[in-house]
Amino acid sequence: MLNIVVLVSGGGTNLQALIDAQSRGELGGGRIAAVVSSREGVYALERARQAGIPAHVLPRKQYGSAEAYSRALEDLLAPLNPGLLVYAGFLTILDEAFCQKYENRMLNIHPSLIPAFCGRGMYGLRVHEAVLRYGVKVTGATVHFVTGEPDGGPIVLQKAVDVLPGDTPESLQKRVMEQCEHLLLPQAVALFCQNRLSVDGRKVTIL
Amino acid sequence: MLNIVVLVSGGGTNLQALIDAQSRGELGGGRIAAVVSSREGVYALERARQAGIPAHVLPRKQYGSAEAYSRALEDLLAPLNPGLLVYAGFLTILDEAFCQKYENRMLNIHPSLIPAFCGRGMYGLRVHEAVLRYGVKVTGATVHFVTGEPDGGPIVLQKAVDVLPGDTPESLQKRVMEQCEHLLLPQAVALFCQNRLSVDGRKVTIL
Repeated sequence: MLNIVVLVSGGGTNLQALIDAQSRGELGGGRIAAVVSSREGVYALERARQAGIPAHVLPRKQYGSAEAYSRALEDLLAPLNPGLLVYAGFLTILDEAFCQKYENRMLNIHPSLIPAFCGRGMYGLRVHEAVLRYGVKVTGATVHFVTGEPDGGPIVLQKAVDVLPGDTPESLQKRVMEQCEHLLLPQAVALFCQNRLSVDGRKVTIL
Repeated sequence: MLNIVVLVSGGGTNLQALIDAQSRGELGGGRIAAVVSSREGVYALERARQAGIPAHVLPRKQYGSAEAYSRALEDLLAPLNPGLLVYAGFLTILDEAFCQKYENRMLNIHPSLIPAFCGRGMYGLRVHEAVLRYGVKVTGATVHFVTGEPDGGPIVLQKAVDVLPGDTPESLQKRVMEQCEHLLLPQAVALFCQNRLSVDGRKVTIL
């Protein structure tokens, strides 16, 4: 059984998608061993509690640097023995040493078709605002391995969805979450737990 | 009846998609009045001939600058009275004055989901090579209005398609052409000819 630790910073709808997939037996041999939040009081913690998953809070604001926070997170994670870390709306950037320690064992979900509308500062509603400002007709979501470059790691899965007339950032965010993110993330986690992801440079092959 | 002039530089498969749509009565009140090629001897010219469409060759290499070529093309086009110019694999960059003269009356098809994998130097197989190098799982095609910025104009239509395991630039190019480009371009031309495209800044609304 592979231990999955889910990292969150907010409402935790992607965490919920993972919890639901687990309850349907669809996480492919992994189990959510713990949830770690970089913020106190977020609803993701309540979701973990309701699902009976141990939840930890490691507030980002109590640490001055990404380095200090990354060391504290490493210390918190060590006894949990995680085989996979999943960023589910986790907005905290970890340092290069952390990324190397967990290389090819960290997945992130991003609400656009990378390489479009991604990178530093591009998260949450900002992504969908940028999508609408640019006027694209298709957007989507991407699951990728986390590296030191924000949203720059090898891509595991992507799914497209139409931008519709009259879309607001909020309506678009909802569609991308429901039709892309909440399907892609459990699917990618299951593939990882089944040892079916092979990474060669930037290319991820599904075995 | 709105006169469509199709600009080409090569094999002309997108021209063929337009000719086929026209023969099915699907160009929405437009008719292909002429084809102009920036290269001699390309197969697009043969396609025009077979369809009984007047074809002109204005070789780019006989003109030193984009400005000189743009003026010559303007002179060639004037008597054709075009209501719409369609770049169908037209690889020649025209100058700002030309782009302003035909503002919101020129459509281009690009074989990726703009803003990914586009811009100067990104055309033909190079696009699909870049897509595979980056390792994205979804690509597609975009029809947009032409402005002075390469691939930077307002987006009319986009369609996504999966990148598949084992894809080569050639196999991917074929899939994007068949499943995206050859559907999108006639559809966008028909919408234009039916006066159903409304442009406001970067946003194109389909009425």
